[in-house]
Amino acid sequence: MKTVKDYIRTIPDFPHKGIMFRDVTTLFSDPRGFRIAVDQLLHPYTGTDIDRVAGLEARGFILGGAIAHQLSQGFVPIRKKGKLPGRTIEQSYSLEYGEATMEVHDDAFQPGERVLLVDDLLATGGTAEAGIKLIERLGAQVVGCAFVIDLPELGGRKRLEALGMDVHALCSFEGA
Amino acid sequence: MKTVKDYIRTIPDFPHKGIMFRDVTTLFSDPRGFRIAVDQLLHPYTGTDIDRVAGLEARGFILGGAIAHQLSQGFVPIRKKGKLPGRTIEQSYSLEYGEATMEVHDDAFQPGERVLLVDDLLATGGTAEAGIKLIERLGAQVVGCAFVIDLPELGGRKRLEALGMDVHALCSFEGA
Repeated sequence: MKTVKDYIRTIPDFPHKGIMFRDVTTLFSDPRGFRIAVDQLLHPYTGTDIDRVAGLEARGFILGGAIAHQLSQGFVPIRKKGKLPGRTIEQSYSLEYGEATMEVHDDAFQPGERVLLVDDLLATGGTAEAGIKLIERLGAQVVGCAFVIDLPELGGRKRLEALGMDVHALCSFEGA
Repeated sequence: MKTVKDYIRTIPDFPHKGIMFRDVTTLFSDPRGFRIAVDQLLHPYTGTDIDRVAGLEARGFILGGAIAHQLSQGFVPIRKKGKLPGRTIEQSYSLEYGEATMEVHDDAFQPGERVLLVDDLLATGGTAEAGIKLIERLGAQVVGCAFVIDLPELGGRKRLEALGMDVHALCSFEGA
């Protein structure tokens, strides 16, 4: 029986030479792969109160939409700067070269809400940390961070756990 | 009882002066709003064989993930050029100024597959037409194009119907 990891395709040298890109499109496009990924992402949170699901642009939208639907909850997109039409708050984070900024609508979460954050991949954890800060700045609480893939050598899990986060990933790959 | 349209927020002057932006984030973030939108998008296709769900970047990913999950089918992203890691085919289309290009992995659909294409908004139909052409170029068949919002004055519905498409939208707004 194929595992979630078996459905993931590796593409060498994307987006840059030397990067082994872990491609989840082959997981998402397979009916069984997509179903078991969504189910397994939610298993640790069985019985946990979740008020809202947040997803990181753009592959986190695919998972987040499915997970919010499965939970019968709403979905909130956390987007790259400039994409959201309403009033936003923003959070910058460092990249290897330069920095990037994520945004969320300033009325997307209510104080006290319990939020599940989802994305396909945990690498350095920079984007996820920005997402967590945005959620917390609006007074909501991140009850879990769920990823399909963890790249442990890039340190994202340790970074998020140092923030007190519960981190859940379905599989991991060596290297960057 | 609120309808899908009641959950949609209008933001004036985004992304440009004079544009009334129809913001579906308030629909997606509401548990009932998101649920009824996904259900109503699927109602016309009850009993229809659908092998795969395709969504247009980026808000179409949120809906497409939920719809694929509801149908227990796989999801295929149709993305802006340069985002997909594997071998792709591309399709350009005209914008008001210049042109844009959408891509799909060249193994994303198999010949004969029946595909439901989803997005949040039907405006001029340029992006949707590019998506349809990509699906058809891989030998698959578009069994329906489902949108939350139609802007009839921009002509997208007529454009897609002229291609022989079945177009389904949950609500419409006047103007652009």
